[in-house]
Amino acid sequence: MTNTVHDTYARLRDHVRTTGTLTSIDALLGWDERCLLPSHGGEHRAEQMTVLAGMIHARQTDPQLGEWLAELADSPLAADPASDTAANIRQLRKQYDKKTRLPRALVEALARAAVRGQQAWEEARKTDNFAHFQPHLEQMISLKRQQADCIGFRETRYDALLDDFEQDALTSDVARVLEALREQLVPLVAAIAGSSRRPDVTILERSYPIEAQQMFGRQAAERIGFDFKSGRLDVTAHPFCSTMGPHDVRLTTRYDEHYFNGGFFGILHEAGHGLYEQGLRAEEFGLPTGEAISLGIHESQSRMWENLVGRSEAFWRHHYPLACAAYPDALADVPLEKFYFAINDVRPSPIRVEADEATYNLHILVRFELEQALIDDQLKVADLPGVWNEKYHAALGIKPPSDADGVLQDIHWSAGLIGYFATYSLGNLYASQFFEQATADLGNLDDAFEHGDYAPLLDWLRKNIHSQGQRYSATELVRRVTGSALDHEPLMRHLWDKFGPLYGL
Amino acid sequence: MTNTVHDTYARLRDHVRTTGTLTSIDALLGWDERCLLPSHGGEHRAEQMTVLAGMIHARQTDPQLGEWLAELADSPLAADPASDTAANIRQLRKQYDKKTRLPRALVEALARAAVRGQQAWEEARKTDNFAHFQPHLEQMISLKRQQADCIGFRETRYDALLDDFEQDALTSDVARVLEALREQLVPLVAAIAGSSRRPDVTILERSYPIEAQQMFGRQAAERIGFDFKSGRLDVTAHPFCSTMGPHDVRLTTRYDEHYFNGGFFGILHEAGHGLYEQGLRAEEFGLPTGEAISLGIHESQSRMWENLVGRSEAFWRHHYPLACAAYPDALADVPLEKFYFAINDVRPSPIRVEADEATYNLHILVRFELEQALIDDQLKVADLPGVWNEKYHAALGIKPPSDADGVLQDIHWSAGLIGYFATYSLGNLYASQFFEQATADLGNLDDAFEHGDYAPLLDWLRKNIHSQGQRYSATELVRRVTGSALDHEPLMRHLWDKFGPLYGL
Repeated sequence: MTNTVHDTYARLRDHVRTTGTLTSIDALLGWDERCLLPSHGGEHRAEQMTVLAGMIHARQTDPQLGEWLAELADSPLAADPASDTAANIRQLRKQYDKKTRLPRALVEALARAAVRGQQAWEEARKTDNFAHFQPHLEQMISLKRQQADCIGFRETRYDALLDDFEQDALTSDVARVLEALREQLVPLVAAIAGSSRRPDVTILERSYPIEAQQMFGRQAAERIGFDFKSGRLDVTAHPFCSTMGPHDVRLTTRYDEHYFNGGFFGILHEAGHGLYEQGLRAEEFGLPTGEAISLGIHESQSRMWENLVGRSEAFWRHHYPLACAAYPDALADVPLEKFYFAINDVRPSPIRVEADEATYNLHILVRFELEQALIDDQLKVADLPGVWNEKYHAALGIKPPSDADGVLQDIHWSAGLIGYFATYSLGNLYASQFFEQATADLGNLDDAFEHGDYAPLLDWLRKNIHSQGQRYSATELVRRVTGSALDHEPLMRHLWDKFGPLYGL
Repeated sequence: MTNTVHDTYARLRDHVRTTGTLTSIDALLGWDERCLLPSHGGEHRAEQMTVLAGMIHARQTDPQLGEWLAELADSPLAADPASDTAANIRQLRKQYDKKTRLPRALVEALARAAVRGQQAWEEARKTDNFAHFQPHLEQMISLKRQQADCIGFRETRYDALLDDFEQDALTSDVARVLEALREQLVPLVAAIAGSSRRPDVTILERSYPIEAQQMFGRQAAERIGFDFKSGRLDVTAHPFCSTMGPHDVRLTTRYDEHYFNGGFFGILHEAGHGLYEQGLRAEEFGLPTGEAISLGIHESQSRMWENLVGRSEAFWRHHYPLACAAYPDALADVPLEKFYFAINDVRPSPIRVEADEATYNLHILVRFELEQALIDDQLKVADLPGVWNEKYHAALGIKPPSDADGVLQDIHWSAGLIGYFATYSLGNLYASQFFEQATADLGNLDDAFEHGDYAPLLDWLRKNIHSQGQRYSATELVRRVTGSALDHEPLMRHLWDKFGPLYGL
């Protein structure tokens, strides 16, 4: 191995880390915009983010980077595919190719269409007028098809779009598993709907003072392992988790005094994302080996802590007495069983973000199928609202009350995020696969949870998932950790194990 | 005028505005660091700021910039010195020359000495051990002398350092006025010390709940004209005001439940800075014509709102009933006169940041003289603590209890901020000069203040000072607005007008 190759790698590493540092500055600008920015500050903030984005893009498509990567691709540093050096070279090569394959005109057209699309979508949603959004979505679909053609794909154009969010995933693989999931979910949801048992969800709509929610949520996040010396929790309108540095991971949530679930499970969800980010190797920050592998794997972490841990009975055996102390007025007369049933209410609804564990993936399936049909030109945008409503009826037995609360409910398509929705379901599927494996490796975790001890699970996740960064693709990582490919059965087992007893199925 | 010159100016403008945008990003990184950053996030934040500082410095010293400026200096765009184009060309030329005259090695040595100096100062202050700081200060003085020699100066090396904070000010001019000020201040302070009247300051140490302080302070800031749609107010350890964009000006303060003055006058002070920033021309952001002219003028705005407005009897005729409503427990039994006297307590103390309006400038005079003596090599660093204590005794009649609360009390020298202190006194002097002129132009303002109406004064400041940006140098601006050069008499008239009646002098 010559010195030259090492020198080249060192230069590559410096270049990419500096780009990563700029990206982390962009994350702060975005976080601040959504949490703190004064109302008149938006225009200049957009200017700041545009200047920075230009610098980041220039660095990411710098021909020098391409030359270094070409030199390194055949070098000994790339020989062992599981080594840090090989993983970085491989992933950076992919990113570079993707970035440089898109013509500048298309990148700009996509950015413009996203800005205008979101504005049109907002207006269309407000006025329940799909026709106002239709031409924007038509243009976006056309641009996304062009994008797919520039990038290239294995089987279908949609593969290229999915790859933006779940690198290396194949649409046909995902579709097969989601289809199998649907076949088992629909009867489960129907069985629950037919049950005479119903939780009293009004107990979650009593008064939960915001300050108590802040304290209780923060304590829970800290308890599951989120490190507030390397992170924060703040308030925003549309909650998210964002990383501004290896020791600066910020959760956001929103509180409604009369809805316990929103604030609390929102915090657990974002803390799940945050634990992944805090578990990445700090010394690799900015490099692929120090970054999360995919949105699906990221979502598996948030869903695991939100649902598999946070909505479990064992979790509440420890936390319910604390909840009663935090909210004496709301919970004094509520036994644990009643509370546990209420937070696990299953009820088909037209709105994805309000969906429960059982129905959630049916919402995703509708979107996943419609996106493919649009990109494959098998569905016209004009026909979308009708087909949307049909599919909701078939999947959930309900008819959306309006387009605003139907086909227009999500921002994603207007912003060009096509291929994104699938990662929510991948997250749910991976979460159950990982959780089953963790239980197989560590034994039943309920005992630990009942004592408020989440360290065994977190350590397992740290070792098997977080610290791996982008060493393996998501598909490969799941196979290595669980011994199986993407699989719907662990999730279905979990849902039956939980809802069977609750609803007397 | 050829098209070429206009094209060059447009390119210059774009270049400088983009640099300004990067600088505004740096301001957000700094603000966030001091207000919100998780405790373990410091290392990466330093990395972010270093990367950005490198990019900013490269743009500021870009030879292309020098060429544009050389071309424009003799162009018709520079002909009318009071035009925006001429002001920008002139000021950018000065900045460029200053930046490019310092050798890279010296810039780096200064940066290193500042970091190490501050660490040593912190330790020295904590352990009351000047000897620990001495070699660092010696090195810093030596580097600052080199800096002055590289930059060049009119009369003394200290001119070059003062110029960093108060561009174009001449040390001899400032010294003459401060000397005249001292001659009148010392007898005033002595007369007050000899008075038998004393306010009851314990009323300011009663319980002022933090939440009430936040609300009351915010209301006052809003009332004097600070626009919270283009700004914020947050909490930090060492209060400051910082601008992240033309409509994003952030004030910070700190609260002590048992000390009314700290939080409240801190907010008024920072809001004074903030009003200046919000009054700059937004469309010129990033260009000299859209930036504050000097630290002295900046401080004149904060001191005016803090002291000439906020510590006036007329101000409290309107705000005192509101204060009594906000703090019923603390103020129910306190008449306005007693409160007004208490917030205007004059008492020589060893600590600058705790000093009142009358003694404050004596603290500055000590530092201003010592800095010059150090830079002129007429005082050895080793002798500094002794001379400091002698001067404090001469000026204020007190002996500092220790070096920690004496010569080591301020961070400035350790960070290389030599020439900075004078701007605090310039601010006090300018504030009184401006305020006298505003009163001459608008008539006595007490009536308006008594009705909580600060718009006449603010409009006057907007027109005469804020909107001017860097069109004129500070010295020139003061002369244009007030018809006089820097002058100690308006401040002395204000002090006698206020303290004469209060102390029965």
